[in-house]
Amino acid sequence: MRLYSLGEIQKWERFYRANFINCLSGFKPVSLVGTVSKEGVPNLSVISNIVHLGADPALIGYINRPLPAAPDSIQNIKDVQHYTVNHITEDIFQKAHQSSAKYEPAVNEFEAVGLASQFEEGIPAPFVQESPVKYHLQLVEIVPISHNQTFLVIGALQHVFLSESLVQTDGFIDLEKAGSMLSLGLDGYANATMVQRLPYAKP
Amino acid sequence: MRLYSLGEIQKWERFYRANFINCLSGFKPVSLVGTVSKEGVPNLSVISNIVHLGADPALIGYINRPLPAAPDSIQNIKDVQHYTVNHITEDIFQKAHQSSAKYEPAVNEFEAVGLASQFEEGIPAPFVQESPVKYHLQLVEIVPISHNQTFLVIGALQHVFLSESLVQTDGFIDLEKAGSMLSLGLDGYANATMVQRLPYAKP
Repeated sequence: MRLYSLGEIQKWERFYRANFINCLSGFKPVSLVGTVSKEGVPNLSVISNIVHLGADPALIGYINRPLPAAPDSIQNIKDVQHYTVNHITEDIFQKAHQSSAKYEPAVNEFEAVGLASQFEEGIPAPFVQESPVKYHLQLVEIVPISHNQTFLVIGALQHVFLSESLVQTDGFIDLEKAGSMLSLGLDGYANATMVQRLPYAKP
Repeated sequence: MRLYSLGEIQKWERFYRANFINCLSGFKPVSLVGTVSKEGVPNLSVISNIVHLGADPALIGYINRPLPAAPDSIQNIKDVQHYTVNHITEDIFQKAHQSSAKYEPAVNEFEAVGLASQFEEGIPAPFVQESPVKYHLQLVEIVPISHNQTFLVIGALQHVFLSESLVQTDGFIDLEKAGSMLSLGLDGYANATMVQRLPYAKP
């Protein structure tokens, strides 16, 4: 094994360092955030730094890049207070990745990348129709991370859409069967294969 | 597809709801946090809500459960200011999972679960010897999440240990080759298979 020190890492070329550091923390649960602007323009953005914060109340968070790198979705979330998170499968990951391009705010990104928007009654944010597991969050708080101008966007779960056939008898969701993908680094996509569920650990 | 509303989810039995909500946000990058107490007792704890916060400065965060559910590692991090994060592979995932048991603070959890601690000069926290990808963080900030008493623990990268053969020519780390596992829900473990790296997206 090789030891890499911070001093060495800081001297690397920018993209080499970005690839290395982005991979280091592991495979991530990649999803598409669906929002709509005040003017009614649907927007998509890829997120992968997603955290489970709690089950009761059900809170899910994600890290948003610093402004102004990803302004559309965060501005829409601030304005409308509602957004959706949609799992990405192998059928749609190339279209999903394309939504990370810097489109102008007036562009409907669902149309631009070729995914279908799905609006449901009483939910003021678009789902991705092709996604097999998707949920609607209401904004709770945007926590600024002072050290690098990123944000932890916290949402409270409101609705979930998925096939009942994915839900096991104890509530566990079979995301391998759903085909939910992972991301690695800035641009890698992967599939997951379940190995085992383990019993609750006791000393 | 079936629509689940928050009202329905809130009525579920507690463990059913916990399984469902923990799975919903996707497969997560599971790792072991290595710490040592002021008194010198090594501690291990499993984390899976890990986020990449930035590459320059290199910052990595994870969500810590509310006190007092996971007091040992967070207290050690506060006291010593240094900790390690160690990827989990199929060779060690059962031992890693066992470290989630509630051991008394005086118990050396490396010994209790059968993993080897690895101390390196100048790094005041133990690595997991069996882990193929591991890194040393220095505490930057513990951000309280007011809505449910969890914490976002932010660390600055100091050192990385891995085999050079895992690092590709552009800095991308081959974590499939490393065997880095994922977790799903409270107790599921999975492997990842790379599908594709995609080019930088442009409109």
